[in-house]
Amino acid sequence: AQTPSVSAAEQDKLDAVADQALQSDAYAWDFVEGLTTEVGPRQSGTAAEQRARDWAKKWLTAQGFANVREEPFMMKTWVRGVEKAEVVSPFPQPLTLVALGNSAATPADGITAQVVGFDSYAALEAAPAGSLKGKIAFISHHMKRTQDGSGYGFAGPVRWTGPGLAASKGAVAAVIRSVGTDNHRTPHTGGTSFPDGVAPIPAAALSNPDADNLARMLERSDDVKLHLVLTPRNLGETKSGNVTAEIVGRDPSLPPVLLACHLDSWDLGTGAIDDGAGCAIIAAAAQHVAEAGQPLRTIRVLFAGAEETGVWGGKAYAKAHAKEPIAVGLESDFGADRIWQIRTNFAAGNEALHKALIQAVERFGVEGSTAIADNGEDLTIIHDQKTGHVDLAQDGTHYFDLHHTPDDTLDKIDPVQLRQNVAVWTQVVGLLSNEAGPIKPD
Amino acid sequence: AQTPSVSAAEQDKLDAVADQALQSDAYAWDFVEGLTTEVGPRQSGTAAEQRARDWAKKWLTAQGFANVREEPFMMKTWVRGVEKAEVVSPFPQPLTLVALGNSAATPADGITAQVVGFDSYAALEAAPAGSLKGKIAFISHHMKRTQDGSGYGFAGPVRWTGPGLAASKGAVAAVIRSVGTDNHRTPHTGGTSFPDGVAPIPAAALSNPDADNLARMLERSDDVKLHLVLTPRNLGETKSGNVTAEIVGRDPSLPPVLLACHLDSWDLGTGAIDDGAGCAIIAAAAQHVAEAGQPLRTIRVLFAGAEETGVWGGKAYAKAHAKEPIAVGLESDFGADRIWQIRTNFAAGNEALHKALIQAVERFGVEGSTAIADNGEDLTIIHDQKTGHVDLAQDGTHYFDLHHTPDDTLDKIDPVQLRQNVAVWTQVVGLLSNEAGPIKPD
Ligand SMILES: [Zn+2]
Ligand SMILES: [Zn+2]
Ligand SMILES: [Zn+2]
Ligand SMILES: [Zn+2]
Repeated sequence: AQTPSVSAAEQDKLDAVADQALQSDAYAWDFVEGLTTEVGPRQSGTAAEQRARDWAKKWLTAQGFANVREEPFMMKTWVRGVEKAEVVSPFPQPLTLVALGNSAATPADGITAQVVGFDSYAALEAAPAGSLKGKIAFISHHMKRTQDGSGYGFAGPVRWTGPGLAASKGAVAAVIRSVGTDNHRTPHTGGTSFPDGVAPIPAAALSNPDADNLARMLERSDDVKLHLVLTPRNLGETKSGNVTAEIVGRDPSLPPVLLACHLDSWDLGTGAIDDGAGCAIIAAAAQHVAEAGQPLRTIRVLFAGAEETGVWGGKAYAKAHAKEPIAVGLESDFGADRIWQIRTNFAAGNEALHKALIQAVERFGVEGSTAIADNGEDLTIIHDQKTGHVDLAQDGTHYFDLHHTPDDTLDKIDPVQLRQNVAVWTQVVGLLSNEAGPIKPD
Repeated sequence: AQTPSVSAAEQDKLDAVADQALQSDAYAWDFVEGLTTEVGPRQSGTAAEQRARDWAKKWLTAQGFANVREEPFMMKTWVRGVEKAEVVSPFPQPLTLVALGNSAATPADGITAQVVGFDSYAALEAAPAGSLKGKIAFISHHMKRTQDGSGYGFAGPVRWTGPGLAASKGAVAAVIRSVGTDNHRTPHTGGTSFPDGVAPIPAAALSNPDADNLARMLERSDDVKLHLVLTPRNLGETKSGNVTAEIVGRDPSLPPVLLACHLDSWDLGTGAIDDGAGCAIIAAAAQHVAEAGQPLRTIRVLFAGAEETGVWGGKAYAKAHAKEPIAVGLESDFGADRIWQIRTNFAAGNEALHKALIQAVERFGVEGSTAIADNGEDLTIIHDQKTGHVDLAQDGTHYFDLHHTPDDTLDKIDPVQLRQNVAVWTQVVGLLSNEAGPIKPD
């Protein structure tokens, strides 16, 4: 059996820098504090996202990263306009909502239509063809709070395809209950998509308290009328891009270790937890590994662009770099709360390394798992190359309180938990980048 | 010494209905659920406040209250318009804010000016005369979380008079850190006022995360420029009104017990905790007392109008009813969390009743106090008549997370704590309304 090639002396140094990161890492906070303050919201394909790339390149260069590069690509860009909703009758009052990405626009003076409520995606599916003609569909599917984020897989389809399904049954617009676990008046945006042959309709998410209120109205009346104004626009093709940078290894001929996050954010918040924190964590970890001594393999960080609107950056990177083998990929895109579990996809082929990683992070409160790491969104290249993958699973209990809302701001990051992330990443990336043998043998 | 006149049998009945209210009161929830769903926001002087009065009269009548009346009065009404803020340089990004009541308007296309930051009211006071000419003042005074709400007295002046003070030193606009203890992107509105001879300027509150962000920008740059659009309007004199109703006592010649709340709310939320809950609690308690048997004194509920914008309703009531003596007044206007303390203003003159009240509510976890009850906002008449007052102090630990924000919605009310309020009110109002002797002897 293979044994990890990291020497006892190297391991000691890595342990020490990881321990130090836990106590006093300042890189990650500096990054996310700076990005959210000096750039703030940075929606894909917009000038704000370009400012974020410029900011990130400057930061990476100042920290001493090598080969800091921007790799542009083109994408289709949708931007928010006016968004207003008002119950016209029988209980006139405004409701708070935000348009979903790819929503169609109403006329400037809006539309008024009767609301038909569905308490689940399944109930909408069961609605007869044509039954929503002229109506606004309201899909009020509750999301469950979970540590591993599995509630998103359960409730997510309401946002991803609910409006398209409503449109296919004749609805003139769709409003969904926010896919989120909080009860604040801060609705959750995110992309939606319409099936081929179905014309997009105006689609928006109500905050949970507003969805509760609309549901109570529908319990009292079967003739609730809603006035809706949504004026988003499609800008056509605009420029986005990835930012990459490296800690060059002692043997650059070996396939590198790829660390990914996404630099774009939705427009409502300042993108602190989604995904400023992820970029902060990976960049901080790369620096701490370098502080322990030049790693054997190159560590490449990928700040992907335009993840939120269709993983444009991850796909562009995979295409542009298809011929360059990657040893192993890791992504951070689930907030800034502590890492509770480590998974790999090479326990079968490289049990020794799998076990060494688990053992190395145990002191940070991270448990091992026999579950196979699944690809992060921006690791398209790892999927294409069927290469190594490590998942450092973060606690997602509170993530969907904030995800894609105006509330995704710096104050939501706990510096102590952020440093735990950096420490775990430092340890794991340190071991992987100093591993001489294949990470995931074929 | 006086002794309370309530018989043991009456006390037993009151104890029983209060215990029952703790377990299963449904009136209070029915009221606040209905009001927030069927009316929602109900700003003073607007058509929405009239809908609230109509709704309340219907509800009170349906519950069997006697003498359900509306007492109109005229008031000056200010309404919100467009509100937008954007940092122009050096870190372009939008900020979330809401106009404060009585704010002046900017031109429709806004104003752009340099921001001058003050980290306290005292720092603004220390700014030299004329030093803010052409600038936007930013007052970033943190509010402390307290159980008794004393943090509001400390931070409140920033909102009440901060913009006026900035205007007097030449500022073209003022933005304040929200007077609130949360960290959500839901700013806290509320009224502000300008001194005589000082022309109103545009005045708004940033959410706490936005105030944090602006403060971080000011740490980095002494030339932060903000673009501000606020287009509120003064509507002139419009109609508001109070709603009153009674449980008629066995001896209507005795001065009544007056229970007050306010029916208007700020426009951003649905006014669940401020002050739908207060009206719900007092109306529910009055009904439970009646269930124990017709009280000796009349219990009058006053749903005051237009409290938020200057206690118009409380003052109108005091003026219209100046000649009618009130025995004792109580107000509920501090949310829906549990009552933790009881205070009266008659411990000196009527110690027996003071002690009987304390003893009666001890089983609900309420403690007595030697502090003298201070008047509730809508109890102007109690102040004028120097008559009896009882304060049932609620736990305000979380109140200023929600106060005057879009987040003041039904889901924030804990039904268990709401019922504890109703139980304590039932007990106290039951004893007061069955007391034959003077409550607060001269
Ligand atoms: Zn993300
Ligand atoms: Zn996202
Ligand atoms: Zn109030
Ligand atoms: Zn208030």
